[in-house]
Formats: sequence, structure tokens, C-alpha cells
Amino acid sequence: MGQEKDGLTVKKSEDFSEWYTQLMIKAELADIRYNVKGLPVYMHWSTKSMKKMYRIMENILENEGHEPILFPAMIPEQNFKLESEHVKGFIPEVFWVTEHGNNEKLEEKLALRPTSETAFYQMYALWIRSYRDLPFKRYQSGTVWRYETKATRPFFRTREVHWIETHNAFANEKDADNQVIKDMKTTEEFLVNKLAIPFIFFQRPQWDKFSGAVNSFAADALMPSGKVLQLPSTHFLGQKFSKAFNVKFMDKDKKEKYVYITCYGPAISRIYGALIALHGDDKGLILPFDIAPYHIVVVPILFDKTKTKVLKKADEILRRLNDYDIFMDKREEYTPGYKFNEWEMKGVPIRIEVGPNDLENKTFTIFRRDINKKYAIKEKDLEKEILKIKKEFTSNLIKKTEVEFKNNIKEAKNFEEMRNIIENEKIARVCFCSLDKEGENCATKIEKELGAFVRGKKVGKIEKPFRNCVICNKKSKEVVYVAKSY
Amino acid sequence: MGQEKDGLTVKKSEDFSEWYTQLMIKAELADIRYNVKGLPVYMHWSTKSMKKMYRIMENILENEGHEPILFPAMIPEQNFKLESEHVKGFIPEVFWVTEHGNNEKLEEKLALRPTSETAFYQMYALWIRSYRDLPFKRYQSGTVWRYETKATRPFFRTREVHWIETHNAFANEKDADNQVIKDMKTTEEFLVNKLAIPFIFFQRPQWDKFSGAVNSFAADALMPSGKVLQLPSTHFLGQKFSKAFNVKFMDKDKKEKYVYITCYGPAISRIYGALIALHGDDKGLILPFDIAPYHIVVVPILFDKTKTKVLKKADEILRRLNDYDIFMDKREEYTPGYKFNEWEMKGVPIRIEVGPNDLENKTFTIFRRDINKKYAIKEKDLEKEILKIKKEFTSNLIKKTEVEFKNNIKEAKNFEEMRNIIENEKIARVCFCSLDKEGENCATKIEKELGAFVRGKKVGKIEKPFRNCVICNKKSKEVVYVAKSY
Repeated sequence: MGQEKDGLTVKKSEDFSEWYTQLMIKAELADIRYNVKGLPVYMHWSTKSMKKMYRIMENILENEGHEPILFPAMIPEQNFKLESEHVKGFIPEVFWVTEHGNNEKLEEKLALRPTSETAFYQMYALWIRSYRDLPFKRYQSGTVWRYETKATRPFFRTREVHWIETHNAFANEKDADNQVIKDMKTTEEFLVNKLAIPFIFFQRPQWDKFSGAVNSFAADALMPSGKVLQLPSTHFLGQKFSKAFNVKFMDKDKKEKYVYITCYGPAISRIYGALIALHGDDKGLILPFDIAPYHIVVVPILFDKTKTKVLKKADEILRRLNDYDIFMDKREEYTPGYKFNEWEMKGVPIRIEVGPNDLENKTFTIFRRDINKKYAIKEKDLEKEILKIKKEFTSNLIKKTEVEFKNNIKEAKNFEEMRNIIENEKIARVCFCSLDKEGENCATKIEKELGAFVRGKKVGKIEKPFRNCVICNKKSKEVVYVAKSY
Repeated sequence: MGQEKDGLTVKKSEDFSEWYTQLMIKAELADIRYNVKGLPVYMHWSTKSMKKMYRIMENILENEGHEPILFPAMIPEQNFKLESEHVKGFIPEVFWVTEHGNNEKLEEKLALRPTSETAFYQMYALWIRSYRDLPFKRYQSGTVWRYETKATRPFFRTREVHWIETHNAFANEKDADNQVIKDMKTTEEFLVNKLAIPFIFFQRPQWDKFSGAVNSFAADALMPSGKVLQLPSTHFLGQKFSKAFNVKFMDKDKKEKYVYITCYGPAISRIYGALIALHGDDKGLILPFDIAPYHIVVVPILFDKTKTKVLKKADEILRRLNDYDIFMDKREEYTPGYKFNEWEMKGVPIRIEVGPNDLENKTFTIFRRDINKKYAIKEKDLEKEILKIKKEFTSNLIKKTEVEFKNNIKEAKNFEEMRNIIENEKIARVCFCSLDKEGENCATKIEKELGAFVRGKKVGKIEKPFRNCVICNKKSKEVVYVAKSY
């Protein structure tokens, strides 16, 4: 793939959008030349990381009592019609399967699932009978399809999304509420501890909920473009869907009751987009340690005279570090410098160089991508040093991104201040009349004037309004956050 | 899920089909009540094993130099038309996406991928430039959809299949040939060593190839119904698709050449069907060790007086065996006997019981599902005993299935002998005129008279014909195998 792999020709700070676009092909992440709009091919370098992300998230979910399951990708049109808000929200985005073979019509149109509530809950109605079956917690790793009308961009917004969805049924409202709180903790464990992505969990305004939900909660992260990107969201569906799909159980008191349902949807491909956008620098990607395809790349510095000895030493490194995902780059058609640039662009956390000088001095040369520093260590210290970097790596990333994130949230006392903050690619914290239906007019004004959105109120911490609504000047019920968004 | 979980009411040997159907719901494998024909829901017990199967196969493929990749599920109609045999073979089976939103037509019909040659190779044409890019080996784990017109059955034949497909490009024919041989070894490593499924790899007759292939090779296993089930197949596509999709490279000699392509498709959901059908017995499933959701289930025998002590001892087992997937069943609403039956039906390889008597005798009671035997061991021998069972378990299964498989292949000297063998639910080994086009008439006669198919000739071992063709009595070129099939 010759020239395409060469370095980036633009700085991230100067043109984020072009930087992101160049990375797609040069780091072998995604190719948008596939001949359907909005459906990129995800190449091996991103796929390897996304597979690791799936595995981490699936482990967290299984430890939390979710079992895996596989539903069909096609959902009959009739299923959608059972929950009236859900049908309104999702039908415009559905891809429809209508034919088979040579122009033969199907008996019924089938939706390519945009989300799976209407597939899952009809089966829950068959499977759940007694309080003994509850909680009933399932997750599915897979793909959903939505006919997006907004501009698409690999990972951020596409017509095919690689995600996980959980669907949980409970005997009572309190258990369901607790699940929503657990989902938020799961999100923090995944995004912050594993991927170094800072975010705020918002309770969304009533006019911006998941279609069919009683309440929606979503994690927003801020991208370098100044727009927020919605990451995992969790939804309290109450008994809306259980009534629509007749999901009942016999309780201990011998009464038949409808279950309470929650669902949660971490979109792996989108989260991957967020992390490359946040951590990368002018050289290219910086990947959090646990999801890097290779944790370590070994580059032997090869000269004819010392080649055999150097390769032997490099093999020793591979042996000593075989608990890690480690790769030796011994391609002879490229110079060491070319290889250094390539692996730095691809965001490999650690590079170990070994050449004739290292042999002589009994050292290895280490380069770490979190702080972009190169230094020598004694041969015998190898395992210790790598373990140290492993421990520090992702927390170094989160320290940096958290400071940036906090610095980009600014309080606005009035509309003009809010405009300034938004135009400077930051998030505005403002007082706002209401997140119930009556606040929607004020939100629409913000959207029209600034192209920005009321993202909701912060979860977990009650913030008291300190002045009147930034738009209508009526008494504020809430402190909300306003930002442009993808 | 109360009563549905209760034991099987039919013996496998007496009614395999009903036995299989009962297992679907009772062992929580699949539910065909989902409201689209041919699209079952795969429940958690089968999904957990299939996830392990994916992981094992992906590791084998990655060690073999394949990188993962993710292509879109939709393929434009125009792509199919580029390879004329491929379009003929696959169009009748395609589900078509034709609309979005509220009855709005898409600009072009999109196929829900039935297989991905026509998606992959247009991108390979962009990515592959030089001999340095070759071999170019990619695999995709995912789902394919085919509008099957034959009777469907969960795992065996469905309209949605969970599989892996590899697509590999090479500089010359020899490298491609070698890949086909490697794919067959991979199949053996997976099916025999991990899953205890015996099979024969056949080179398929020219009239029964993958549409667009030069040669097709497929592994057939024999199910208890007397029908064979096609498991992984690997295909030598030669330069047919590289010419259709213009996949060229600059060779060392500075000449532009078309690549040679191979593809390989292990269908995880179908292989799972084969292994439950083969290994199960009248009690239910027997799962090969490495893919059992739990390797071990611990059942504490609880009485009021000794409950605390017994649970403490059970916890000790969990701690000592935490390298295994181990589950403690301490549900109090079910009797030990009920639990024994349930875990035996679900095919868990090892059960460890611990009760008051065990405490007194310093023993654990072990039940192993490969040989259905129960015995006591000394507490201190726990790790050693489990390791021993782990080593023996899957090879005990393959010993049994291999003998059965060999006993079910019978030589037929004439048509009447062949009819007898087929009617007795076995595979007939016969002499046959030719696997090229001129043999198709004889194959059609076999199909019409016996409902059976010429599966091809054995790969890897040249078998010399010992008499004339079993149908036309002309000189035989081949020894072939004939069987009914799914």
C-alpha cells in the first residue's frame, strides 16, 4: 500500500478534520471508497482494537450478570407498530428488506434492525414467567443499521454501527433504576479507566429521549472540533414496552405484573472514533494500552555485520515479553526511521529498539508514545520497565484529556457569553427554564441561533440554578450544558 | 422458564429429529418462535459456546497470518454482476434491501451479503499494488443471510448464518494452492482436536462447486439422521474474481499480474449444530471441554445443619479451580437431583458435588459427562483429577465418534448395494465415471432414485477405482462417496 502509508501532511491542531481523514487510510483504519454512502470498510488496524474493546466490555457485562444472546438482524414491520413512540422515532431511519431472489416480494417488509427492542421483548414475553426468572439480563454484540441523513464520517456517524445492546427486565422499578446507575458505572469503568475518555453523563431533556423511553441518560465527550459526541446511553423504559409486548410475570404475591425494562447501548465503533480523535497528535494515533493491537513493537537495527547477533537479542525480547501483544518488525525494505514513524503514527504504546550499540552497552532503547520520549534501559530491567509503562500509560492519557475537558466547560451568564463559548468550540454551562416539554421552545431558539443543543442536566450531582433562564429569563429549574454536536 | 427446562421425553436413538427439537428450548439453545421463518433466536447457552468457538478459530487464523477486517453487510447489486457464475449461483438466495424510511426507494438495490467476495475484491483492487503486499490475508467474523428454500432447522440450515470468511490474495498459483491445503489443516485442528467431529474433506464435483470457483473442497460430517452436513469449505478461485474486479499487482519482474484468490468459510452456528447432534445422548448435550460455557458446575448438597460448612467448602473449590470456567449452583428452590439432570442435559463436562458426607470423608464427588460416571476423590487430589479429565475429555469423544463414522461408510459394488447403504442411513463408497461435467447425468440419476448426492472424491489420498461406474457401467475415473444431505 506504498505511498498511502507515508506520514500525515497536516497538524491536528491546525485542521482536525483533515487530520482525521488522512489517518483513516494512512493508519489503515477505514476506507470510505466502498461503493455505498455511509458504509465504510473498517480495516485491520481499527478492527483489531475494536475486537479488544468488545472483549473488555463483554467481560464487564458478564461479570454484571448479563448473558450473551443472538437475535436475527431482521425485524418484521408489524413489531415496530406495537410501541407508538418507538415507531415514530425509528421508522424514518430504517433500511427495509422487501424482496428476495429475482424481484420476488417478501410477504412482509423486514426492517434491518436499527435497535432491537421490538425483536427482544416479544421473546421476553415467552421466556419470562415468574419472579424467579428475574432479573433477566441479556446482551448482544452486533451490528445495527440506520439510514442517517446527517453527514457521515467513519466511526463518528455511519449507516452501520458496531455496538453492544443490553436488554434487562426487572420485577420492580427500583431494581430497574439501579441497573441504570450500574450502566453509568460500567460506562465510567470502560471509557475512563480503559480508554481515557472523559465525559459527562447527562439526563437528556424530555424532547431528546430515546423513542419509547421514560428517561434517557447519555455520556457526551467533547471532540477536538468543539462538537460533543454521544457515547453510551442507558434508558429507563419503565413498563411502556412490557405493556406493548405483553411481558408479564407471576410475582411472589401470586399477582401477574408487567416487568420494568432498561436498555443500554455502547457503540464500539463510535467510541473508537472518539478515542482516536482525543488522544492522537501531529504524528498520528496514540492508543490506550489495553486496546492497542500491539502493546509493543520491536525494531531491530540491522547492519550486515551485526545482523545475526541483533536478531538473536530481539528474539530474546519477544520471549521475555510474551505475555504482551508484541510484534517484531524485521522488514528489510524499510529504514528504521521509516518504521519508527509508521508505528508512532499507528499509536503503538511502546517501541523497543535494539542495535549494535545496545548490544555493546547491554541496553535496550525504549520509546513510549504517551509522553513521546526515548531513553535507554539496562537489559535486565526490561520486564520491570515495561510493567511500569503499562501501569502509567492510560492514566497519563486520562490526566491530559481530563484537564482539557474541564478547561473546555465554561459558565455563561447570558446569551452573548453562551454564543462566545460555543463559537470558541467549548461547552457552555447555563441556567435554563426546564427540561420538561415547556423548555423545548428555548432549546429550539438555541439551536436556530447557534446550531447548538441543550444536552441535559448532569447526572449524580444536583446543580442549583443561580440565575434565570438564559433564553426566556423565566425562573430556572435546571443547570444545563449546551454544545454543538455530531 | 419453569417446566420447559424439565428433562427430555424422547430417546436420541429412537427419534433423533424430535430429540434435537426438544433440546432447542429445554437446553436454552434456540427458539424458533421468532416471527420470521428460518430466523431462530440463539439463546444464551448456545451463544456462549459459539463465542468460544469464534475465539478459538480466530486465534488459529491469526496465527496463520490472517488479519481481521469488517466489511459492510450490504453489497450493491452491480457488484454481483461482475462475475457471471457467481451472480447465477447467488442471486436466487439474496435478501434485497430496496427501501428506507417511509416507503422511499433506494437509488440502487442492496444485497444483504450472502457471502462477501463481491464486497472484498473491489477493495482489494484499491489496496493491493505490489508483490510486497502479498500474500494479503484477511478474515471477517460476522453474519450472512440466504433466502433458503429448503426446510430450515436451527443451526443446521437457517436464513441467517454466523460464520467466518477468509479472503486471501497471492502472487502465484502455488501459494494459493498451499493456502487451500492449510485451510484443510485448520479445519482438522478445529473440528477434530477441539470439537471431536470426524469428517471427510471432499473435492466437490464440477457441477457442485461454489459459484465462481475453479475448485471447491468441503468437509462433510455424518449426522445421526444418516444425512451428511457440509461443514467448512475452502475454494480455489484462481484468477476469475481478480479479473472481474481488476485486482492486479506489480511483480518483482516489473510486470502487472492478476492475483490468485482463495476463500474459506467456517460456519460457526452450523458447526455447533453438528457437534450437539453428534455428541449428545438420551440425557441431552455433551459439550467438548474447550467450548463448554462452564467446564465445571459445583453443586453443594444443602441441609440446614451443615449448610454453612458445605458452602464454605464449595467456595474453596471455586477458589482452587478459578482457572476454569466454573459455576456454583446454590439455588435452594431446586433439589440436587433436579440440578444434576439440568447440568447433564446442558452438557457441562464436569460436576463436583460436595455434601455432609464428603466433608466427613474429606472427599469430593465427581461426575464426568464423557463417560457418565460418578466417583469420589480425595480433597487434595482435586486439581490433579480435573486436569486429567480435561486432557481426556475431548479425545474420549473423538474416539467414540470416529469409530461410528468409519462404521457408517460402506463400499457398494452395484446400485442395489448402494441403495441399501443409503436407506440404512450410511455413506456409500462407490466407483464413478467422472466428476467432470460428463458425470453429471449419473449423479442426477442417483439423486432422482435415492435422494442422495455424489459428495466428491476424498482429498489427500488417491483412491483407485476398482470396477466400472455404479450407474452407467462405463470405465470409472474416480472413487466417490454418496449420501443424503442437509
